[in-house]
Amino acid sequence: MDYSRVFAQAIDRLHAEGRYRVFIDILRNKGMFPNARCFHGHNGPKPITVWCSNDYLSMGQHPKVIAAMEEALHDVGAGAGGTRNIGGNTHYHVDLEHELADLHGKEGALLFTSGYVSNEATLSTLAKVLPGCIIFSDELNHASMIAGIRNSGCEKRVFRHNDLVHLEELLAAEDPELPKLIAFESVYSMDGDIAPIAEICDLADKYNALTYLDEVHAVGMYGARGGGISERDGVAHRLTVIEGTLGKAFGVMGGYIAADSQIIDVIRSYAPGFIFTTSLSPVLVAGVLASVRHLKESSAEREGQQAAAATLKRLMADAGLPVMPSVTHIVPLLVGDPVKAKRISDILLAEYGVYVQPINYPTVPRGTERLRFTPGPSHSEEMMVELVGALVEIWDRLELRQAA
Amino acid sequence: MDYSRVFAQAIDRLHAEGRYRVFIDILRNKGMFPNARCFHGHNGPKPITVWCSNDYLSMGQHPKVIAAMEEALHDVGAGAGGTRNIGGNTHYHVDLEHELADLHGKEGALLFTSGYVSNEATLSTLAKVLPGCIIFSDELNHASMIAGIRNSGCEKRVFRHNDLVHLEELLAAEDPELPKLIAFESVYSMDGDIAPIAEICDLADKYNALTYLDEVHAVGMYGARGGGISERDGVAHRLTVIEGTLGKAFGVMGGYIAADSQIIDVIRSYAPGFIFTTSLSPVLVAGVLASVRHLKESSAEREGQQAAAATLKRLMADAGLPVMPSVTHIVPLLVGDPVKAKRISDILLAEYGVYVQPINYPTVPRGTERLRFTPGPSHSEEMMVELVGALVEIWDRLELRQAA
Ligand SMILES: Cc1ncc(COP(=O)(O)O)c(C=O)c1O
Ligand SMILES: Cc1ncc(COP(=O)(O)O)c(C=O)c1O
Repeated sequence: MDYSRVFAQAIDRLHAEGRYRVFIDILRNKGMFPNARCFHGHNGPKPITVWCSNDYLSMGQHPKVIAAMEEALHDVGAGAGGTRNIGGNTHYHVDLEHELADLHGKEGALLFTSGYVSNEATLSTLAKVLPGCIIFSDELNHASMIAGIRNSGCEKRVFRHNDLVHLEELLAAEDPELPKLIAFESVYSMDGDIAPIAEICDLADKYNALTYLDEVHAVGMYGARGGGISERDGVAHRLTVIEGTLGKAFGVMGGYIAADSQIIDVIRSYAPGFIFTTSLSPVLVAGVLASVRHLKESSAEREGQQAAAATLKRLMADAGLPVMPSVTHIVPLLVGDPVKAKRISDILLAEYGVYVQPINYPTVPRGTERLRFTPGPSHSEEMMVELVGALVEIWDRLELRQAA
Repeated sequence: MDYSRVFAQAIDRLHAEGRYRVFIDILRNKGMFPNARCFHGHNGPKPITVWCSNDYLSMGQHPKVIAAMEEALHDVGAGAGGTRNIGGNTHYHVDLEHELADLHGKEGALLFTSGYVSNEATLSTLAKVLPGCIIFSDELNHASMIAGIRNSGCEKRVFRHNDLVHLEELLAAEDPELPKLIAFESVYSMDGDIAPIAEICDLADKYNALTYLDEVHAVGMYGARGGGISERDGVAHRLTVIEGTLGKAFGVMGGYIAADSQIIDVIRSYAPGFIFTTSLSPVLVAGVLASVRHLKESSAEREGQQAAAATLKRLMADAGLPVMPSVTHIVPLLVGDPVKAKRISDILLAEYGVYVQPINYPTVPRGTERLRFTPGPSHSEEMMVELVGALVEIWDRLELRQAA
């Protein structure tokens, strides 16, 4: 057994497909987002503009968030020092869970160290607690949901993306007595489309299924108080579990679920990914508390972000660039080839000081490789005009496909 | 299908076994650790002494750590804003990975959002990349390693705790050509015993197996620079992967592995739990950098902690309390019953202002329920004398078993 040869082959496969990843080494400049410094290639700090952050609303830079974190740092210190059960349950955690339950109109909420862990831990545990459970999963669900479903060891049926007819077909084919769970996302983050939540809830009612909605790319962003698409559509009360992250629009780090108290109690008591890990640093929790509270009251950030996304989509379309048909804040530009996507990104960084990451398989299906822009309230129209100019130049230089 | 009934039954089982968990709601007072405020029972803040924190060296309160986090907060903001690959790779992350690789004398290191995730992601990915891999796992391995092994879907052999003869038997029984991985811990955190690392490495050499060592309860704590038991024993170079947490002795939050660059590259490129999640907040990473650097140079915290643990063990033994035979900084007191363990803990909190969590199944085997004390450099001998007095009184009151 030659271990090194097997490992080398695994890496070679990535190089061969042009999807070996190099992490761009950056530091953001607080208060000046989207400006940052780039250490890539060890040429020392170089100014760049970040176009692919998921800190969608720049809340990671918000004075209230920074002040709350600073206060917690001085009041209680750096880390939680234990699991939630053993010394790591602080009053900040308890407060934030109440705040998040309220955000979604649910009885309870539960914090995890990340959105990934909240999906993995909750889905795998729910399905284990319900013997014979079948999970119905949208084919474009995020890797963390797929991990949870696989790790539950339960039966899984994959329905075509946002396809109600297919979902109903699959639901109808199963024994009505078996427990069922429909797992899906509200905003699909790589295409920017939205699930028909109400209609999926109708099917859940008809076939007595539970529902699990990942609102990771929507919490803070949609709804009058930032409760996500389920708030915007007035359907939050119909969902069994709503899951979100604290690391994107809320600007910090962590994940959570909101649900009725019984389900929260079950997950809290049975999920290894919740139980056996140091709880979120109180410093992070304090920052999220400030962020969630602010976005419950202020819609200015949401409106600024939506306006920026609309402008960038229009500018790209006008310039003949193949912008994909997103109905949300996400602006994906189709390339369709991993090597070219990386090449465009490299040119943008080296020649234009523009940082946008190429999105390749396995994050998106092969053949749909793209650049994914997330303009926010701090990207000016002038920056966008410059960006589109750069893209048009590169598209010409590399003889890339224009919009159909 | 009555979902609510199934969920209620799951919770009832916990009540029936006396292991339904109630999280104690506390806030530590920075600079005054182990003192804290307790919100339990909503009677408002009440002063308590914490005896069960895994912030073993009080580094979560260290001025250098706090200062570094404050600086990062003001320099770059609250969160990373993306995955390591998409906008969330900061210069702090790169620096800390170098620092951790150096700590263990390895070529590279890789950060995860927690120690739990580092174990789950690395073990499940390693075993998937090596077709036919068999994992040899110590029976007392932590839940996060068990999750990684199970989620890899590979063959698993469980060897009796720290039992070299049994491990060799199992290794010898397999096809020499198949890939093998031995997964174990250095310090077992609930008993406080230590694995025979050198001897396990000898077996790994003899049977051409890789080794994976969880040093979660030892990093920062043992070895001249805090490199763990593998540093203390001079065997770090013999281990394939060393895994650690940033949330216990280092006082903050997060996890990592250290290994040769090829393995780091494989995990970085293939592990979903590493790839598809917002990276650690740069604020946390900055704090850990300060903590790791400090503990590489200063042994005062380690020595203070070892002295405190020795004193508490001696005081308990002298008082006839059934302290378990730990050879490390961990001081477990055997109770052997989940209801009694919780009762003792409740009395300590309500009557003595002492917070120590009962440790019940599934964290420890049934019948070995215990209280687990982690005295640190900030617990004075006077506090210990008081604590032991309280325990003796409660032991008498509840007519509990004394030391044999
Ligand atoms: C749809 C979706 N769910 C969950 C996650 C994981 O959230 P987190 O970054 O907080 O781990 C992500 C991205 O990271 C995501 O895109
Ligand atoms: C042996 C062991 N490994 C891993 C972990 C997980 O580390 P973390 O708390 O950083 O998730 C723990 C405890 O939490 C542990 O005790």
